[in-house]
Amino acid sequence: MKILVTTIPFGAIDPAPINMVGKLGCIVDQNPIGRKLTEQELCGLIGDYDAMIAGTEPITRSVLENAPRLKLIARVGIGLDSVDLNEARSRNISVSYTPDAPSPAVAELTIGLMLSSLRKIAISNEGLHQGKWQRYFGNRLSEAVVGIIGAGRIGKRVIHHLAGFGCKKILVNDLIQSDLGTNDRAYCWASKEQIYREANIISVHVPLTGETRHMIGTDEIQMMQANALLINTARGGIINEESLYKLMADGHLGGAAIDVFESEPYSGPLREIDRCLLTAHMGSMTEDCRARMEIEATEEIVRFASGEPLQHIVPDYEYAVQAHMNKV
Amino acid sequence: MKILVTTIPFGAIDPAPINMVGKLGCIVDQNPIGRKLTEQELCGLIGDYDAMIAGTEPITRSVLENAPRLKLIARVGIGLDSVDLNEARSRNISVSYTPDAPSPAVAELTIGLMLSSLRKIAISNEGLHQGKWQRYFGNRLSEAVVGIIGAGRIGKRVIHHLAGFGCKKILVNDLIQSDLGTNDRAYCWASKEQIYREANIISVHVPLTGETRHMIGTDEIQMMQANALLINTARGGIINEESLYKLMADGHLGGAAIDVFESEPYSGPLREIDRCLLTAHMGSMTEDCRARMEIEATEEIVRFASGEPLQHIVPDYEYAVQAHMNKV
Repeated sequence: MKILVTTIPFGAIDPAPINMVGKLGCIVDQNPIGRKLTEQELCGLIGDYDAMIAGTEPITRSVLENAPRLKLIARVGIGLDSVDLNEARSRNISVSYTPDAPSPAVAELTIGLMLSSLRKIAISNEGLHQGKWQRYFGNRLSEAVVGIIGAGRIGKRVIHHLAGFGCKKILVNDLIQSDLGTNDRAYCWASKEQIYREANIISVHVPLTGETRHMIGTDEIQMMQANALLINTARGGIINEESLYKLMADGHLGGAAIDVFESEPYSGPLREIDRCLLTAHMGSMTEDCRARMEIEATEEIVRFASGEPLQHIVPDYEYAVQAHMNKV
Repeated sequence: MKILVTTIPFGAIDPAPINMVGKLGCIVDQNPIGRKLTEQELCGLIGDYDAMIAGTEPITRSVLENAPRLKLIARVGIGLDSVDLNEARSRNISVSYTPDAPSPAVAELTIGLMLSSLRKIAISNEGLHQGKWQRYFGNRLSEAVVGIIGAGRIGKRVIHHLAGFGCKKILVNDLIQSDLGTNDRAYCWASKEQIYREANIISVHVPLTGETRHMIGTDEIQMMQANALLINTARGGIINEESLYKLMADGHLGGAAIDVFESEPYSGPLREIDRCLLTAHMGSMTEDCRARMEIEATEEIVRFASGEPLQHIVPDYEYAVQAHMNKV
C-alpha cells in the first residue's frame, strides 16, 4: 500500500502522525514540491497511490481520472471545496475530514485580526522596527456592531470570544437559526444585507460552495459603511478579491483582514493596500490544532489500512450540496 | 489667563475640547514642537501659563521652578509618574487626571497584542505585503496560562476579556485581592514569582513608581519559560528594556509586545528583534477614549477658570506613594 501526503507541513509540530503511518509498513511519500500542489502536478503524482493525506490542493475529476488505485482521501482540515466529492464517490473513493480540530484556532485568529486591524498593530510595529514612531488612532471592539455571517463551528466560537468584550451589537446570519450557546444579550439574527449595511466589522464563516462563491462582491462591499472592517478567515473566493481591491484602492472601507485567497500562495494586488492586513492561510496553524488535525486524518488512514470502519467520513449532505451547486 | 496644551494630539478626533477652551476667552497655546516635550523644552515654555493640559512630558521640580504662575496641571490620562506631585503641592498647584477614560482602550490593545504575537499576524502581514508567503505556527490563548500583574482598572478589564477565551488558567497578582467582578473559575491569585515561572503569557498593569521601576529585569525574565510572551501596555521602565533586549537577543522568550518605553519616541535596540512586537504608546489611542480623556481634562480647566471645584483631583494616596518612593 502506498500513501501520498500532500498537505504541508506534516509531522513538523508533533511527529505522532509520521510514527503512525511509519508503523503501517506502507510506502509513505511526502509532497515533493514543498508547497500546495497544482491540479497538473497532482495529476502527475497521484497514479500509484492507494490513499492520500490531503491539504487544500485541487482534487478534481482530472486528478481522480489519474488515480486508478486511490481508495481514500483523508483531508487534513474541514473545507471540502477542493475535492470533487461526487466524482470521488462514483469511483468508490472514500473521503474523510477533520471538521472539529481547526475551529478553535480559526476563531482566535479572527479576533486577533479584528483587534490588529482596529488598533493598527501591524502597521505601527512595522514603522517602529524601521525607526518611525507614529501613533495611530484606532477603534474599540466594545463600541462596534459586529456582523457574523455563518454561525457554524467557527462562527459560534467567534461569538463566544466576543462575549468578553461586550460589543454594542452582534448581528448573526445563518441558514439555520440554531442555538448559539451564549447568553450574550447583544446578539440577534439578521439578514446578510442588514449586516452589510449596519456592521462596523463583518466576518464570514461559511464554507465555499457554488452559492457562497463571490457572495461578497462589488454590490455588497458598496453597501458597507465607509470605515467598515471586512474579515475573511473562511475560504478564498467567498469575497471577490478583485472587487475588494478596486473598492479599497478607491478609499472605501476602513480596513480588511484576509487570511484566505482565491489562489494561494497569494501574490495579488491587495498587497498594495496598507490597510489590508494579510496573513498566509494560518487560521488552523496553531500547534495544538494542527497536530490534532494531522493525527485525526492519519487515524483514518490507519483505520483504512487495518480494515476498520472510518470515523470521520464526510457526511452525505456535503455531497448533496456540491451536486446541487454543480447543477445551478 | 493663559493655558498651555502640551499633550498631542488635542482636539483632532473630536473638536469639543478646543471649543470648550475657546469659549473661556483665555489664550490657549498648543505644543509648538509637535511631539512629547523634554524637561528642558518645557522649562523654557511654561513661564507665562496659569494652567496646562498635560501629556506625559516630565513635569519635574525644575519645570515647576520655572512656572511661577501655574495653578493647575490637568493630565490627559491616568499615569502620574511624569509629574512631581509633592513639589506641585508645595507650590499650591492642583493636579487633576482622567483615571477611567483610557482603561477600556488599553485593555483591548493588550488582548490584541497577545493574539497578534501568538499568531504572528504582524510578521506574516509584512512578509505577504513584500511578496513572501510564509505560514507561521502559533499558539492559542485558550491553551495558555496567563499571568496578570496588577488588577486595577485595566488589569480587571483584561481578565474580563479573557473570560471569552476560556484560558487554561489566569494567575493574578495585586497588592490587594479585590473582587475582580468575574465568575471565570480559571483565575486565581498568585505571587509575582509564580507568574514569572508558570505563565505562558505575562502582562503588566501596574503604575510606574519607585517600587515598580525595573520590577521585571534580568532575574525575573530568566525565571520565565523559554517560549513565554511578555506584554507591557502599562508604562515604560516597569520592564528593564536593556535586560529584555539582551535576553531576547540570546534567544530567550517566545515573544514580547511592548507599547510603552523608558524613552519615547522609542528608537532602541528592541527594534532589531523581529519577535518583539512594538507599538507607539497607542494604549489609549482609540477615538472614543482619547476624546473622553481630552474632554475630561478640559472640563477641569473650565471648572478652574470658572472658580468651580475640580472633580478629578489626584487623590492623596498618589502623593503618599511618590513621597514614600522618593525616600526609599
